[in-house]
Amino acid sequence: MSITTRAIVQTDSNDPASLEWKETELDDLQQGEALVKVHFAGVNRADTLQAQGHYPPPKGVTNIIGLEAAGVIERANGTTRPDGTPWVDGDEVAVLLSGGGYAERVVVPEGQLMPVPAGFSLAEAASVVEVACTLWSNIMMTAHVDKGSTVLFHGGGGGIGIFGIQLAKALGATVAVTAGSQEKLNVCSRYGADILINYKDEDFVEVMKDHGGADVILDIIGAKYLDRNIDALAKDGHIVIIGMQGGVKGELNIGKLLNKRGTISATGLRYRDLDDKARIVGETIRHVWPLLEDGSITHHIDRVVPVEKAADAHKALLDGEVTGKIVLQVVN
Amino acid sequence: MSITTRAIVQTDSNDPASLEWKETELDDLQQGEALVKVHFAGVNRADTLQAQGHYPPPKGVTNIIGLEAAGVIERANGTTRPDGTPWVDGDEVAVLLSGGGYAERVVVPEGQLMPVPAGFSLAEAASVVEVACTLWSNIMMTAHVDKGSTVLFHGGGGGIGIFGIQLAKALGATVAVTAGSQEKLNVCSRYGADILINYKDEDFVEVMKDHGGADVILDIIGAKYLDRNIDALAKDGHIVIIGMQGGVKGELNIGKLLNKRGTISATGLRYRDLDDKARIVGETIRHVWPLLEDGSITHHIDRVVPVEKAADAHKALLDGEVTGKIVLQVVN
Repeated sequence: MSITTRAIVQTDSNDPASLEWKETELDDLQQGEALVKVHFAGVNRADTLQAQGHYPPPKGVTNIIGLEAAGVIERANGTTRPDGTPWVDGDEVAVLLSGGGYAERVVVPEGQLMPVPAGFSLAEAASVVEVACTLWSNIMMTAHVDKGSTVLFHGGGGGIGIFGIQLAKALGATVAVTAGSQEKLNVCSRYGADILINYKDEDFVEVMKDHGGADVILDIIGAKYLDRNIDALAKDGHIVIIGMQGGVKGELNIGKLLNKRGTISATGLRYRDLDDKARIVGETIRHVWPLLEDGSITHHIDRVVPVEKAADAHKALLDGEVTGKIVLQVVN
Repeated sequence: MSITTRAIVQTDSNDPASLEWKETELDDLQQGEALVKVHFAGVNRADTLQAQGHYPPPKGVTNIIGLEAAGVIERANGTTRPDGTPWVDGDEVAVLLSGGGYAERVVVPEGQLMPVPAGFSLAEAASVVEVACTLWSNIMMTAHVDKGSTVLFHGGGGGIGIFGIQLAKALGATVAVTAGSQEKLNVCSRYGADILINYKDEDFVEVMKDHGGADVILDIIGAKYLDRNIDALAKDGHIVIIGMQGGVKGELNIGKLLNKRGTISATGLRYRDLDDKARIVGETIRHVWPLLEDGSITHHIDRVVPVEKAADAHKALLDGEVTGKIVLQVVN
């Protein structure tokens, strides 16, 4: 048996813009999965990579794009909340996905169903799931930011950067950001960033050295910044690479890393197994949701776009014209 | 004021063999330091590097070689044990050092004074300090080996390898080792290693893949093994580099590391600050000393050499003819 839905389907695997809204089929629910009616889906850079053929879904996961969404449970199918109480048809949820968000319906493993943060609309909830889980898993569960840490976010003006600034500030850290324009740095400053670096005018290594180095660097650039990230690191610092916009292979000077007693991790959410994702989702609900609910971290939606215009949303993101998140609207 | 002692002094900085036993001066004790009469000093590969001019002591530390020793407190100078009780003149101690072990007397910061493990001679105690602190700080405090982990030690037949095999087994891990001869692999097997890899005959990557990959790799090779260590890693695995016998700079494939969600750390003990060392020493006494005392981990002294023959000891170590530790005898 299968489930009928409308979804964004890529009709030409060689054309990342061939994203059409059309009817398709989903595999039926398995035990431990719920069916969610999607109201809004978040757009991530990883989605644009998938459309370009670079970031395939894990084995067994739908080819439909989309790593996060929010909506209403259509078939709870016996799933339970982290506290053990049952999810009920009609419950509003935010969901972390391995794929499938750009659709009317999505199948979600129990461990990836999250309550909507109190006071958040479904559009707002859809915009924070991936970034919240990514940041918590990286800056807390992989690196261990705490009071007194200095954290550097590359690409401070993006969705990860803006959320990261606020999360790190809430954790008591000093926050540095790099960005390519004064406009983006102004946004970072408004969200609480302490050290603003325009990478076109300044060398982030020199700036970070003046501030004693970074204890944690969250990097989306990869190879191009590898050596300079080590230079910018404080003793016992930790570089966490979650993107490779600046290339995949770079020279690692191990001697330099050893002088800093540095650590480099490269991580991602999507290919983790269900238990791992459930653990991350659970910690994110416990630690990050309260910060959303008390206003310590605000969502930042740049624009809401009808889901039929997914290709335009991808183009806007790749053109660098977005500060914050794009959300696709599925239900009017 | 200063303290007179005899010590190994390098008389020609361009000649690593110019190690003479002669009278020299130490800076007088500061508060929080004890003076220890050395009976035995351990020899480490790092000592041979220092004699070659590659591994200078931290600022403010004596030029005298030697990272570990055991002996008797000559002037406790108000220092206290980790439990707060006072050290007393005449107490036997093992000591972790930033330098100065190849001498009759050494000045030791309070946090680096350790009791001699029950049942251990001073020679035996001197042989385990550096390796115990190195292993605990790396495989537990940096990586987090636990029951069910698979740990790979490169250079299984050396001092680090032999101790590491036993420590990892005591922690419930499966242990793999590489070594360059069947003789060394036999030693590793005797100490409990489960997976024996002769790197001259076999590709450690293939062997580790057959065993599901390594969760933790303790590496002394550096650049030459960087890429293959990533290949040998299990998902979420951790490579800890503590030596660079195979070169300092290597290409890092970040994409490959990200596919494994891998982590690479490069660390060392010597340049850590006093607080950090005291923390490592404290954990080592708490967690490793009991394993020495109950026989879970045995010392492995290859030979005891008079301190005057330090140059010969270094040569033996560099010639690769040593399995286990060389200890220098200072007091007859």
